[in-house]
Amino acid sequence: MLMINETHDINLTSWVSFANSDSDFPIQNLPFAIFKRKGQEEALRGGVAIGNQVLDLAAVAKMNLFSGSAQTALEAASQSTLNTLMNLGVEANSALRLALSKALRTDSPLQNILTPTLIAQDEIEFGMPCQIGDYTDFYTSIYHATAIGKLFRPDNPLLPNYKWIPIGYHGRSSTIGISGQTFHRPVGQTKAPDATEPSFGPCKRLDYELEMGLFVGKSTQMGELINIENAEKHLFGVCIFNDWSARDIQAWEYQPLGPFLAKSFASTISPWIVTMEALAPYRSNFTRPETDPQPLPHLSSEQNTQNGGLDINLSCFIQTQAMLENKQQMAQLSKSNFKYSYWTPAQLITHHASNGCAMRSGDLLGSGTQSGPTYEEAGSLLELSKGGKIPIDLPNGEKRTFLEDGDTIIMRASCSKEGAVRIGFGEVVATVLPAKV
Amino acid sequence: MLMINETHDINLTSWVSFANSDSDFPIQNLPFAIFKRKGQEEALRGGVAIGNQVLDLAAVAKMNLFSGSAQTALEAASQSTLNTLMNLGVEANSALRLALSKALRTDSPLQNILTPTLIAQDEIEFGMPCQIGDYTDFYTSIYHATAIGKLFRPDNPLLPNYKWIPIGYHGRSSTIGISGQTFHRPVGQTKAPDATEPSFGPCKRLDYELEMGLFVGKSTQMGELINIENAEKHLFGVCIFNDWSARDIQAWEYQPLGPFLAKSFASTISPWIVTMEALAPYRSNFTRPETDPQPLPHLSSEQNTQNGGLDINLSCFIQTQAMLENKQQMAQLSKSNFKYSYWTPAQLITHHASNGCAMRSGDLLGSGTQSGPTYEEAGSLLELSKGGKIPIDLPNGEKRTFLEDGDTIIMRASCSKEGAVRIGFGEVVATVLPAKV
Repeated sequence: MLMINETHDINLTSWVSFANSDSDFPIQNLPFAIFKRKGQEEALRGGVAIGNQVLDLAAVAKMNLFSGSAQTALEAASQSTLNTLMNLGVEANSALRLALSKALRTDSPLQNILTPTLIAQDEIEFGMPCQIGDYTDFYTSIYHATAIGKLFRPDNPLLPNYKWIPIGYHGRSSTIGISGQTFHRPVGQTKAPDATEPSFGPCKRLDYELEMGLFVGKSTQMGELINIENAEKHLFGVCIFNDWSARDIQAWEYQPLGPFLAKSFASTISPWIVTMEALAPYRSNFTRPETDPQPLPHLSSEQNTQNGGLDINLSCFIQTQAMLENKQQMAQLSKSNFKYSYWTPAQLITHHASNGCAMRSGDLLGSGTQSGPTYEEAGSLLELSKGGKIPIDLPNGEKRTFLEDGDTIIMRASCSKEGAVRIGFGEVVATVLPAKV
Repeated sequence: MLMINETHDINLTSWVSFANSDSDFPIQNLPFAIFKRKGQEEALRGGVAIGNQVLDLAAVAKMNLFSGSAQTALEAASQSTLNTLMNLGVEANSALRLALSKALRTDSPLQNILTPTLIAQDEIEFGMPCQIGDYTDFYTSIYHATAIGKLFRPDNPLLPNYKWIPIGYHGRSSTIGISGQTFHRPVGQTKAPDATEPSFGPCKRLDYELEMGLFVGKSTQMGELINIENAEKHLFGVCIFNDWSARDIQAWEYQPLGPFLAKSFASTISPWIVTMEALAPYRSNFTRPETDPQPLPHLSSEQNTQNGGLDINLSCFIQTQAMLENKQQMAQLSKSNFKYSYWTPAQLITHHASNGCAMRSGDLLGSGTQSGPTYEEAGSLLELSKGGKIPIDLPNGEKRTFLEDGDTIIMRASCSKEGAVRIGFGEVVATVLPAKV
């Protein structure tokens, strides 16, 4: 687990002045993205957010300002995906972070030479941060699992394996897109409970899921197990993740092999990846009720219990077509926190590799819907509308049980803690278009 | 659907004489693989099998013998993966097939110039034929689904959705390997029915699954649907596929989101991809019992009913450590046929894209275990041993309920039909190593 160091110092400020004004991207954050200038024919390359600017890492790499592993990492980060950077592992990434932190600090001697490599964030567009070889979605919120389970099995909402094993399944990587993604309402086969036969048509119960996405860092080979003590060395960083779901398609298709087309039509990630090192000050402890089973030894460590969780505030908003047309503010749907997760990031990757499964740099692990213990912390409309039975009221008088065409979902995340600067993840935004048929 | 043409002519012979002697690879076959010379430091590139030889497509491409789309496809096939070739689509691939067929025929004027580009198959090693972006596994054998269902639900083996929708789930692409793959017995969490708590240790119920693998050809974009009439334009070809399964891990983990670590430790494909065009003579009709529901309109076409299936004979063998040591022949476990599939390849890809899911060249669709209607056609040990209850006898006196360390599984496939030459797929071979812990 990465420790708090000088790059997290609350007293650090940047010569990029916007970074010092409660921005999502103070000098203590330094998240990575892949970008290019909007509308320009130029190569995608890595960038680091600082205030309202992006530091163009390809431009910086050419200057040969750094040395050793920091320069190696910088050159990796100037490629069109971050996979190579991710695979360098925590030491090189940490060296790059320290070098970037020093370079961007107030009174850095590099200010003049680096100023031309800054680009305003509102002048860029993002690319996918990496090639996602495999995408896995977990189910780590016990509150979400219980709420969903109640809809299907009121007397027995939580299955016997839930508290023993991080439940997960493989998802589709070909339709993962970056914030700004739009997609057509999926069409599929569904069967109403009272119908004798299924029918084929547009999804009627379209939903979002408020999740975090974890990117794999250093790869493992097939057959190589990950010890929980070293697990976070194989995690690069975290984004916000919206795992769109078609509830009616899922209900008909998912037995016995799990969700398939109910999920594979679209999934949206935020463009900025906040590194595990940047998150060092915002760890949370991970204790379970004494009546719950404790994790088996291979999923347990002292450090995991002390600090395995991540204290990341999440919030979810909707902007309907009507709100957009009437220039009304988006409406908050819920707020939650990643610390409610029943399994830690270290446990997820340790479990994932425990059968010898190869983990590749850039693989994405979704946390599963991060619902919290109260109704206001529900991470999906399925929960907020009590299984689609009770519509929720929006401030402009509209109601929603599930999503309508033209709805935009906005998710945000940030970390705050006494003695640390607030850092943010930016946001993930995506819009539902009408079905094509 | 591709039609029978001059490349399938039963009277064609090749100047590569071995191809004319009931080889898996007569001139009517011409399957693709990625290869290089064994132990040589040289680039992986595409090859086509002819008899006991490989035609080195990179070497042929440099000669500029072909023109138009055949030459374009040949150059694509000389890359280190076949993804570009696959994405060219059926017209270009068909042009290349015709050009290769003409070039390899008896009395071809190209014989002298092409002879140096042949390499003996026993002098090569294979690479992965393509980058597999996403891997999906279906469940198309109703006999397998019923047999497995009976183990869990004796009174209600087949779930209500089975005859309406091709059941499938996403699998793990990072551990798909080529024939010759070895892997350590997976370790995982399991819970014996009479145990109060789960435990972590080596899998006790390791199994193979006899499957076919379908490779996606021309890509589709997100939101682009595939009409069943055009569906096979998006399929490049077929391999043999062994989807290794850890039954005890699966039983504990799979509810409610499906198989995960029970499958992701290893999957093995045969190196040669037989193209959909090569399979044109071996189509089978696809009719269901009149009492079964007929497919919904988007999964139905006249042509699909007439010829949607593929008549491919499958066989599965075991070679135990003892057989190897005592120089005994491998033992046949079962035989089956892909024509038993309840869903056709066209239905699988049409269904897969029906929600707007992007299909990428090189994506792999597993057929699911291809068990046939009789016991002798069971495609897994789980079925052959009646759920692990009745060991099967091997000819050398050994018994198996599930796989033991050192066991090698060999799968073969071939097509025979009156009026057509027999073509084969070669084989897929892989060996279980002891668990690492």
